[in-house]
Amino acid sequence: MKVKGFTAAAVRAGIRYQDRLDLGLIYSEVPAVTVGMFTTNTVQAAPVVLGRKRLLNGKAQAVLVNSGNANACTGEQGMEAALRTGSLVADALGIDEELVQVASTGVIGEPVNIDPFVRAVPGLAASLKEDGFDDLAQAIMTTDTVPKTSSATVEINGVSVNLLGVAKGSGMIMPNMATMLCFVVTDARISFSILNEIVKTGVEQSFNLITVDGDTSTNDTVLVMANGAAKNHCIDEENKESIKVFTEALHKVFKDLALQIVSDGEGTTKVVTVRVVGARSREDAMNGARTIANSALVKTAFFGEDANWGRIIAALGRSGCQFQPDRVSMAFDDAVMVENGLGCGKEAEEKASKVLQQKEFTVTVDLRDGSERAEVFTTDLTCDYVNINADYRS
Amino acid sequence: MKVKGFTAAAVRAGIRYQDRLDLGLIYSEVPAVTVGMFTTNTVQAAPVVLGRKRLLNGKAQAVLVNSGNANACTGEQGMEAALRTGSLVADALGIDEELVQVASTGVIGEPVNIDPFVRAVPGLAASLKEDGFDDLAQAIMTTDTVPKTSSATVEINGVSVNLLGVAKGSGMIMPNMATMLCFVVTDARISFSILNEIVKTGVEQSFNLITVDGDTSTNDTVLVMANGAAKNHCIDEENKESIKVFTEALHKVFKDLALQIVSDGEGTTKVVTVRVVGARSREDAMNGARTIANSALVKTAFFGEDANWGRIIAALGRSGCQFQPDRVSMAFDDAVMVENGLGCGKEAEEKASKVLQQKEFTVTVDLRDGSERAEVFTTDLTCDYVNINADYRS
Repeated sequence: MKVKGFTAAAVRAGIRYQDRLDLGLIYSEVPAVTVGMFTTNTVQAAPVVLGRKRLLNGKAQAVLVNSGNANACTGEQGMEAALRTGSLVADALGIDEELVQVASTGVIGEPVNIDPFVRAVPGLAASLKEDGFDDLAQAIMTTDTVPKTSSATVEINGVSVNLLGVAKGSGMIMPNMATMLCFVVTDARISFSILNEIVKTGVEQSFNLITVDGDTSTNDTVLVMANGAAKNHCIDEENKESIKVFTEALHKVFKDLALQIVSDGEGTTKVVTVRVVGARSREDAMNGARTIANSALVKTAFFGEDANWGRIIAALGRSGCQFQPDRVSMAFDDAVMVENGLGCGKEAEEKASKVLQQKEFTVTVDLRDGSERAEVFTTDLTCDYVNINADYRS
Repeated sequence: MKVKGFTAAAVRAGIRYQDRLDLGLIYSEVPAVTVGMFTTNTVQAAPVVLGRKRLLNGKAQAVLVNSGNANACTGEQGMEAALRTGSLVADALGIDEELVQVASTGVIGEPVNIDPFVRAVPGLAASLKEDGFDDLAQAIMTTDTVPKTSSATVEINGVSVNLLGVAKGSGMIMPNMATMLCFVVTDARISFSILNEIVKTGVEQSFNLITVDGDTSTNDTVLVMANGAAKNHCIDEENKESIKVFTEALHKVFKDLALQIVSDGEGTTKVVTVRVVGARSREDAMNGARTIANSALVKTAFFGEDANWGRIIAALGRSGCQFQPDRVSMAFDDAVMVENGLGCGKEAEEKASKVLQQKEFTVTVDLRDGSERAEVFTTDLTCDYVNINADYRS
């Protein structure tokens, strides 16, 4: 998949490890309408602080991203490094440095060594190509086991428009953005305010609904760049149908990448959709779903393929979600295990246990107390998760 | 240690497993002034609902406790079982059933089979003895690896007063009471209102400050029974010095039991004190300490003996605690690793890594933004935790 007017590349810069792609670059022929969403963590990496500031005018033309060093908790030296690496890119591409976004992922709190960037950026800029996004997807991996890409093509008033997204993330994944990076490029011509709205609602319905371990990071970044190279009739306030079509396409790319992230969750053997329905309010439903999805006891039971609904209802009970315990029903896929707050017996449990042997399933908790619902995507908690994170820096 | 006027016993009733102590009884010769604190979970086990109601008059004379079946999410049948097992005890001891407390721990959502209780209670009542509390401490264990007891003796106006506590808990442990049971008996003569106040503040400063996995349960119970058999001058409003002495003793027993619980946390290899100081408010300090203490990434780093302060500061950053990242300092015991938000380099890290090799250590995070502080006790997150909880019901 190619997107008109966009190129990308990646190189082995040796930032933390040798012999792996660890530095990537995205470039648009012309400055692109760009929307960014960043971590809500109080501690923000230097690239996040810089990126947010540079996007106040809604434009970017290049993104430099490294894996290996998060450039977080690195003080003034970190901000200087972010500025310096950005200006290396601006020089190599002959563009305004204010149009360069930098992003990073990796270990927090280590000073950035600028030398690998100085050596690598000119070659990186020289190797930009239309089909460079697969390499880029590899360059941003840390504990990810697979690169993550997703694309879509839609017709806007008879003109074909392309979207291509890459993402990384597998630990520190939690609603409110997770440790993840996501870059989507599109050749759509679109107004900033419309794109901004679509990105915001899309992130809510994708990356903010996944959880691996309940931890969030200092570096989370979603950037969407639209350069208009498709020359479609501009997607703006006047074109409701175009907005609808483009929204569906971008949200589909977001959701696809979010599910790829959760599937690649550290040490994961199961991907579980936790759905709370029949709640009095959306907030109640979301609190309940998130607390269940983050409970260590629930997640270890998933790993053990144990239909332990008591742990699920106990997690619900501490979530702050309003409900009447004696009204609750619960099912694993279509195997109903609980009715009116009571277990349905041995046969039901055996049926549910079979569902838990699948790699993917849905837990539906019906509070029978209202009409609001929420859905969160989570994983099991495994020994491999523990080992990966006990060893990550070694 | 004996406490005047109190006896206890335990038997193998075969409630879930054969050949282990699983049913215990505590008895006071006379109705005792009794204070109970129970789970804050929306889902409450039948014994909790019943116990809370029966303590409205502040008196109890016996406690029946089983491990194996939590009697939670068991509906009307569960409440009938709680009432029935209580009346078995009342009959065997010849006391008013309103003075019987029942408590339970074990699997949630399984119907209670009354038969083992019918068979066991008469023999249990017949075997009550002054030194039966060690057996009782064993009978309430589930995934606990060691029984937990603590005692104290103090002088109240020249009269010797004894306190003896037993507790259980090792998973589902989290601030706000954890999955734990704690029973303290004392021969002190004390007014209900004074005892109530001392228990409340004591639980805040002990059981509510420990965490293993962030999960809370449907069965948490702390009961303190004071039967006055020591015949001390009554501890009431008029005797500030007596209140002080007794408060110190009871709080010491609570704290000792709480630390025993966290040390026996499922799969634990480390016990870590997380201390946040220099906060603007107590709430900020507590939010920060709890979020760090519950972070899966922080806890796996402890397991890996990795002084990964980036994960600690990232957890702090998502806690809602107000702070300036560039003012923060952090130390592992007395090895300072972070000053003004920046890492102190390789030598500091090596020193900190040595601290992490210990079985116990303290992480101190100084926000340098105020004078409030909080302290939480936590564990590492290990493969054994995962395995214990993946296999718990099998």
